[in-house]
Amino acid sequence: MTNAQVTLIQIDNYGPWTVTPEPRREVDLQTLQSRLYADLSQLVGNREGYVFFTRFDNMVAVTNGLDAADHALIQESVGNRYPVTVSLSIAVDSSPAAALGTATGHLQDAGSAQDGDRREILRGDPLDDAARTDGDVRIAHFDVNDATGKYTDQLNEFDSFINIEQGYAELMRYMRNAHESLSFFVGGDNIIAVCNDVDEAGYLDAVGHVREAVGVDLKVGVGTDRTAQAAGMAAKHALETCREECTDVEFA
Amino acid sequence: MTNAQVTLIQIDNYGPWTVTPEPRREVDLQTLQSRLYADLSQLVGNREGYVFFTRFDNMVAVTNGLDAADHALIQESVGNRYPVTVSLSIAVDSSPAAALGTATGHLQDAGSAQDGDRREILRGDPLDDAARTDGDVRIAHFDVNDATGKYTDQLNEFDSFINIEQGYAELMRYMRNAHESLSFFVGGDNIIAVCNDVDEAGYLDAVGHVREAVGVDLKVGVGTDRTAQAAGMAAKHALETCREECTDVEFA
Amino acid sequence: MTNAQVTLIQIDNYGPWTVTPEPRREVDLQTLQSRLYADLSQLVGNREGYVFFTRFDNMVAVTNGLDAADHALIQESVGNRYPVTVSLSIAVDSSPAAALGTATGHLQDAGSAQDGDRREILRGDPLDDAARTDGDVRIAHFDVNDATGKYTDQLNEFDSFINIEQGYAELMRYMRNAHESLSFFVGGDNIIAVCNDVDEAGYLDAVGHVREAVGVDLKVGVGTDRTAQAAGMAAKHALETCREECTDVEFA
Amino acid sequence: MTNAQVTLIQIDNYGPWTVTPEPRREVDLQTLQSRLYADLSQLVGNREGYVFFTRFDNMVAVTNGLDAADHALIQESVGNRYPVTVSLSIAVDSSPAAALGTATGHLQDAGSAQDGDRREILRGDPLDDAARTDGDVRIAHFDVNDATGKYTDQLNEFDSFINIEQGYAELMRYMRNAHESLSFFVGGDNIIAVCNDVDEAGYLDAVGHVREAVGVDLKVGVGTDRTAQAAGMAAKHALETCREECTDVEFA
Repeated sequence: MTNAQVTLIQIDNYGPWTVTPEPRREVDLQTLQSRLYADLSQLVGNREGYVFFTRFDNMVAVTNGLDAADHALIQESVGNRYPVTVSLSIAVDSSPAAALGTATGHLQDAGSAQDGDRREILRGDPLDDAARTDGDVRIAHFDVNDATGKYTDQLNEFDSFINIEQGYAELMRYMRNAHESLSFFVGGDNIIAVCNDVDEAGYLDAVGHVREAVGVDLKVGVGTDRTAQAAGMAAKHALETCREECTDVEFA
Repeated sequence: MTNAQVTLIQIDNYGPWTVTPEPRREVDLQTLQSRLYADLSQLVGNREGYVFFTRFDNMVAVTNGLDAADHALIQESVGNRYPVTVSLSIAVDSSPAAALGTATGHLQDAGSAQDGDRREILRGDPLDDAARTDGDVRIAHFDVNDATGKYTDQLNEFDSFINIEQGYAELMRYMRNAHESLSFFVGGDNIIAVCNDVDEAGYLDAVGHVREAVGVDLKVGVGTDRTAQAAGMAAKHALETCREECTDVEFA
Repeated sequence: MTNAQVTLIQIDNYGPWTVTPEPRREVDLQTLQSRLYADLSQLVGNREGYVFFTRFDNMVAVTNGLDAADHALIQESVGNRYPVTVSLSIAVDSSPAAALGTATGHLQDAGSAQDGDRREILRGDPLDDAARTDGDVRIAHFDVNDATGKYTDQLNEFDSFINIEQGYAELMRYMRNAHESLSFFVGGDNIIAVCNDVDEAGYLDAVGHVREAVGVDLKVGVGTDRTAQAAGMAAKHALETCREECTDVEFA
Repeated sequence: MTNAQVTLIQIDNYGPWTVTPEPRREVDLQTLQSRLYADLSQLVGNREGYVFFTRFDNMVAVTNGLDAADHALIQESVGNRYPVTVSLSIAVDSSPAAALGTATGHLQDAGSAQDGDRREILRGDPLDDAARTDGDVRIAHFDVNDATGKYTDQLNEFDSFINIEQGYAELMRYMRNAHESLSFFVGGDNIIAVCNDVDEAGYLDAVGHVREAVGVDLKVGVGTDRTAQAAGMAAKHALETCREECTDVEFA
């Protein structure tokens, strides 16, 4: 059984900050957001976790292997280097969606995302080291079949983007509703999902659903391991197998 | 009449690079992509333009005011600092979608996005300085009414995200089909659209369409100027007016 | 006659910030300082100027071509993206050292570098555009003859570093005292000096002085132009000529 | 007895790369170098080590606690995100200078720093985990007494810099020759030295030597621990004690 440790990362009081005392230049906001995401990717990634940019002011991380002290150091490092601070909330559940729900609830209990006095909250209980197993994290890495040939090299780039975006929008809803899984667009034609115990039929259903709903053809490689990094790398290799063998679903 | 100068930025042969000789660590790819976007935001933004991350391997910029030499320097600066290179293609049209279509076509003519020999292409004709006017760039800045109160502080973060994402997916398609405009999610609950001569009724229709289709309430501030930076800042101020006066559409 | 526009960049109240409320982690300070320097290099460099890291909390820039509005935007962009702010002071003089002296005086008049209330000062008068000439900026680019063969590939890296550092310490003092020039170590075995009207004999004296004083053999390429970027690139090409022709001094 | 684990980080074939096919823009080189340093600071710092920028193309790290796999991952992460690669060489010795000498020798044996075929070398033996003790790393953190009052707020910034630089140049040589310690300027008026078993008299001698030689007044806090991060933080606190009690040397 999977046991995902999920961390919600929320920039404190970000919306009001972006327009105080007047609206700040968009290019600086974009630079700030994307660099904060890059830094969090490294801070969490150096400890074998994954971060997804989500809405940038709220990011979602898979943090199996990171304890409370690791989270505190990441929070401190952001505070030392950015004009904004972050709150972090951790939860563990066999269902990734349930874990994120619990993590979100901790922060909501601590105050509004736009409460100027609610800063650098750190809540929740990481998975005890003794309880960790090699089956805790399941990552499914989807991409679009021949995206370059069918979209990038053929269509107006915005229409390519609309196709990818539609595929993602369908998949994210389907995986969340059918399988309590959290799917994130990670650039190009790639979507990475944090899943629980979905079996081959489940992935085939997901791929089939997206094909029928919006005509976008996906394939998926699935990996399971102790950390997001290890499970994600296994999923990438499985996806390479899909490519070589023209299959829709491969497990590492 | 608007006259958008749009630049398509495409990482050369990126997909194959990410899996050669074996799949590269996802955290490094995420870091690379988001930092490249941050750098392009600054390189273009320091010349009064805007860049949108789009798919990260293909980014779209509004570059009124940047000439061919500016583009060449940006291309060179990326090549000097990243393990990947970028191709750039520029086009001008009163319709932003048409401009991007032309720009995309230039790159497609030069070779596939995954052609290992097609590197650092720079094509297209920037708007002649003498032809530039204060009405060239129109930016519409949308956000979601009370996103914090209705979503962030209430729902599982993934469900907040699904709502924002659905609003975006509807708006991007509607604006592209009805108004040849290009809409980009820029984080939080914000969407920035590069528009042509859409009038108040047009924006009200768009807001109404998204509300009916997916139940997400948007408002929008619109600004027009010589550059993306100036038009975008005017749009932000107009959006503040929407907030203060509880209106759906405001023009700067 | 040269006419250097020099900008002093000073982080406001930085020392106290680094130990408030307790000493901050050194790795975060190092990351902050070096990224701030990198960002200023790009912000100034995209406008054809040069920045030198100097002491990191005080940086020196050659900013011919940047007006007050450019400086204000750089100041704003730093404030939008860092937990610290910067003060900027601009001065122009045929003597680079005198220009920096004037610029320093402006900030000292405005208050102490550790005055918590002295923030985001912007003072001084940029060179009027009409007064600018192609002879305003002179850059001398020095490097060490065969540094790799004599030091890097032979000695303990710290002893290589001591040699380079001694060469730099001698050159910086000599050029400042004999020629009112400002010399900056820029990494590897490279030193870039902002000079006034030093002639060939002057450079030969400088090279000779360093050789005699500490036994380090330098060569130098010199370029003159309207901006630091253009003069600096000319100096690099002249230095390549030194390398090819085994000469000590070359003018572009 | 101290037992420093020192890693030499060398950019492969960097000098030739900077001028191939023609000299690259200095601002891009400065940006590349300082960001690479920032990234290494985080990559090593997240594992409790310290990196010093030294010459930027050759950097020195104190890496107690990092094993060969950690080094390999850092090397891979740089290769994934930069247009250059790095070689790493590790050595352990009670004498920091001797450790760096051994580490340098490994790389020199593997080929020249400017050998285009010598790439991503990883050599040397990290300290076995079982052999590590709480006395392995000793960090001495020096700063200049009242640098702001005596220099920054009084002198031309270049003359302030010359004073700091002279103090550093004297200290680095003295500590290396008298105590086999490696001293690094880290910005502002701060110097961090990696030391072996220097006692109070040794530090007083060093401070006295610099005062007599160049008239710069230093004080120093010293910390000892299992990692650079812990020893360095203890040294910072000891330096705060110097400040409060007007002493020249304090041990944590």
